[in-house]
Amino acid sequence: MKNNKITSRDVDFAKWYTDVVNAAKLSTYSNTKGCLVIEPNGYAIWEKMQQVLDYEFKKTGHKNVYMPLLIPENLMKKEGELIEGFAPEVAWVTEGGQKHLEERLCIRPTSETLFSDYYSNVVKSYRDLPLLYNQWCNVFRWEKETRPFLRSREFLWQEGHTVHATKKEAEEETLRMLNIYNDFFHNYLAIPSIIGKKTNKEKFAGAEYTYTVEALMYNGVALQSGTSHYFGQKFSKAYDIKFLNKDNNLEYAYQTSWGVTTRMIGALIMVHSDDYGLVLPPKIAPNQVVIIPIGDTEEVNTLANTYKEILNKNNISCYIDNSEKTPGFKFAEAEVNGIPIRIEIGKRDLENNNITIVRRDTREKLSYSTNQNIVEIVTDLFNKIQTNLYDKALIRRNSMTFRAKNLDELKNIMEKQPGFVHGLWCGDEACELKVKEIKGTKSRCIPLDKEHIDNGKCMVCGKDAKCEVVWGIQY
Amino acid sequence: MKNNKITSRDVDFAKWYTDVVNAAKLSTYSNTKGCLVIEPNGYAIWEKMQQVLDYEFKKTGHKNVYMPLLIPENLMKKEGELIEGFAPEVAWVTEGGQKHLEERLCIRPTSETLFSDYYSNVVKSYRDLPLLYNQWCNVFRWEKETRPFLRSREFLWQEGHTVHATKKEAEEETLRMLNIYNDFFHNYLAIPSIIGKKTNKEKFAGAEYTYTVEALMYNGVALQSGTSHYFGQKFSKAYDIKFLNKDNNLEYAYQTSWGVTTRMIGALIMVHSDDYGLVLPPKIAPNQVVIIPIGDTEEVNTLANTYKEILNKNNISCYIDNSEKTPGFKFAEAEVNGIPIRIEIGKRDLENNNITIVRRDTREKLSYSTNQNIVEIVTDLFNKIQTNLYDKALIRRNSMTFRAKNLDELKNIMEKQPGFVHGLWCGDEACELKVKEIKGTKSRCIPLDKEHIDNGKCMVCGKDAKCEVVWGIQY
Repeated sequence: MKNNKITSRDVDFAKWYTDVVNAAKLSTYSNTKGCLVIEPNGYAIWEKMQQVLDYEFKKTGHKNVYMPLLIPENLMKKEGELIEGFAPEVAWVTEGGQKHLEERLCIRPTSETLFSDYYSNVVKSYRDLPLLYNQWCNVFRWEKETRPFLRSREFLWQEGHTVHATKKEAEEETLRMLNIYNDFFHNYLAIPSIIGKKTNKEKFAGAEYTYTVEALMYNGVALQSGTSHYFGQKFSKAYDIKFLNKDNNLEYAYQTSWGVTTRMIGALIMVHSDDYGLVLPPKIAPNQVVIIPIGDTEEVNTLANTYKEILNKNNISCYIDNSEKTPGFKFAEAEVNGIPIRIEIGKRDLENNNITIVRRDTREKLSYSTNQNIVEIVTDLFNKIQTNLYDKALIRRNSMTFRAKNLDELKNIMEKQPGFVHGLWCGDEACELKVKEIKGTKSRCIPLDKEHIDNGKCMVCGKDAKCEVVWGIQY
Repeated sequence: MKNNKITSRDVDFAKWYTDVVNAAKLSTYSNTKGCLVIEPNGYAIWEKMQQVLDYEFKKTGHKNVYMPLLIPENLMKKEGELIEGFAPEVAWVTEGGQKHLEERLCIRPTSETLFSDYYSNVVKSYRDLPLLYNQWCNVFRWEKETRPFLRSREFLWQEGHTVHATKKEAEEETLRMLNIYNDFFHNYLAIPSIIGKKTNKEKFAGAEYTYTVEALMYNGVALQSGTSHYFGQKFSKAYDIKFLNKDNNLEYAYQTSWGVTTRMIGALIMVHSDDYGLVLPPKIAPNQVVIIPIGDTEEVNTLANTYKEILNKNNISCYIDNSEKTPGFKFAEAEVNGIPIRIEIGKRDLENNNITIVRRDTREKLSYSTNQNIVEIVTDLFNKIQTNLYDKALIRRNSMTFRAKNLDELKNIMEKQPGFVHGLWCGDEACELKVKEIKGTKSRCIPLDKEHIDNGKCMVCGKDAKCEVVWGIQY
């Protein structure tokens, strides 16, 4: 039942990706250049992601707020590095209410400026701190290319922005949120991400340092999938966020920001999906089970309804496909849409007290007796699917993880099979730029335990290495 | 414990409103003109509203999607009435990626255009219909005045957009969503809203007709609080949304749209709150119960924790105020923030196995024995508070609901005490404009059962009346 609308993943990965997005009805191009429509199947995945992350944010004391969409040019420019980094990418509103505006307003590419401006008004004393705020919203960056979920002028995300009384607390927060993202990737998305620090060149404009969550796609290309920034006092000095500390002295506050976007949907697709369409880990699938009755008999329908009811009651999302299509068509549709488990209830099977269950990940057909507990069967399969997807992705990632001692080795690897390449680095940007000449390979991150290397030589210049870097080709 | 920061509601209603918004930390002005920051306390109310409404939308078969923020000028202009209605209010992006754009992009004031454009691509056959989509997003309208939640250039809302194969189904949908809004106002917001049709002059630009939910504020001013529009084939003809009907003929589809906004938070404040601050119905309060320990003894703390745990377990949101403030300060804070129930656990009371519970709505202090079941006590009080708030609002609304037989009577009423004034109307816009001369009184709606009046005369011109109108002064 190979889906004819989907190009094979191993033949043309880029085409395969677009085909899966289209076939599973996740997203489509709009008439606004560079902007996409997120269709119901795609948006439902985003809602699941939001639900889990929002719970984790709130559990760690964060609160949601909403800041304006538009930022006056002067406010945007107060911190120099940020506007420098984003200037090429912003969209400007210059007319409103049928008048030409005296000051341009930019559509937020990110909201450090507005949060900082707000914080400068409300933070007075160490007693007000920390302030742990987050917002779910749309942002806009004038990208030149458009790829559903991966790159578009407008995208959806959450951006956490926090203020702290001490450097230590702010640095802990930066790491805390990085770990929440990393756990989310492992436990929900079944993606074995790696975490680390960005090099100075790759860090966020305006940050003292940036942590990143990096994931490796099926084709060996790396995807930056979430970031957590430590700002120190950079923004608090630019926006005048001062507080009376415990010694009654005025001090600039310490800030962080962190975010993940709808790009995670792209990562999900490129790690798990196959030539039959979307594959979703049960823990993030909006529809976890589909029941397909075969043969319109009372027994078949009764059992379908009983299953649906009992699964829903146990917080398993489940629907019956009662449409007028043929069973074969329904199977293919469930497959292309990535429903983790499909239960087929056939008239003849039922005479022998049997049902058939098909796992989306392995496409195995399994036979069960109707005497067995359906909730137990499904829960058990969910665990197996979730684990299997993670393990498969890990094995694949490991098979595409290499080590290079010099540029020739890196080149050989990247030309044969791109992946994550571990290599030592002296810390000099010139060396980083030399690596980039090899198929655009960039430093992805410096793993947390590899920030200081004692004995080793830089992969590029051969001088003493400072740290180990994971290199890769980026989306 | 009258809050000194809050002007009395009966002295200066507008000032009182702003004071409550500030004191309860719901929202504050930003440095982007006409745009507001929604602070945690305000945003949490919006999240509760979203949660309830989203559940109702999904229960009735609607799915969430996301459409682009920006609309190309030509796409926006395809349907003439819509752009005519919104032209004075839109903001235009004219620069992006450091270039001047060939075509201006407007920030969505509403998304009929983008939904219709999308539908024209995906609707082929009656089998594809209905499509019942909704989106939660920000919209932008270049307003001249700014009032937190009531009027601001950017606001948050949901906009449902549906396509149907028949006029009948589309009209049913329009009414279904109106009723969902109305039920939400009654059952959750405890606001006795009235529903009806807008006159032709007051309907949404581009709609065949508009239903509205109207609520009366404490000061007798009317607030349009939700709308549901029937478009017929207006947009489907402009955007070419055609489908093959059951007879295999191409037919233009039938559409609706419906929305409610963060303005509902303004309605909540202006209907229920008082000189002590915010008052929230328990069913929409983000924090439903606050426990205030008085005296730092083990017994006090143990009971506080036990209560918190058991209430949370029963899906009642509850927190303990363990801050270093004085009990008096904590009481005032709980009051100003509108926490429906405050439980005071005092060391001395506890020696007699007593606790004190204070209702926010009536400010009554009630004594209970620690032997009583706390979940039952709280649940029972929630019901009483919810009912009391609704009943009080209904009594007040009724006391401000009048009937006028001619313009003099209307004038007398509006000058003494504005409110809802029922009066017959001939259907002529000239008469509607004459009514407007009286303190800006507008038609709020034509109640559903008063669309056709047989025996009666127009309140303005004395000719035969067509229908009854509820008139009022609008926010």
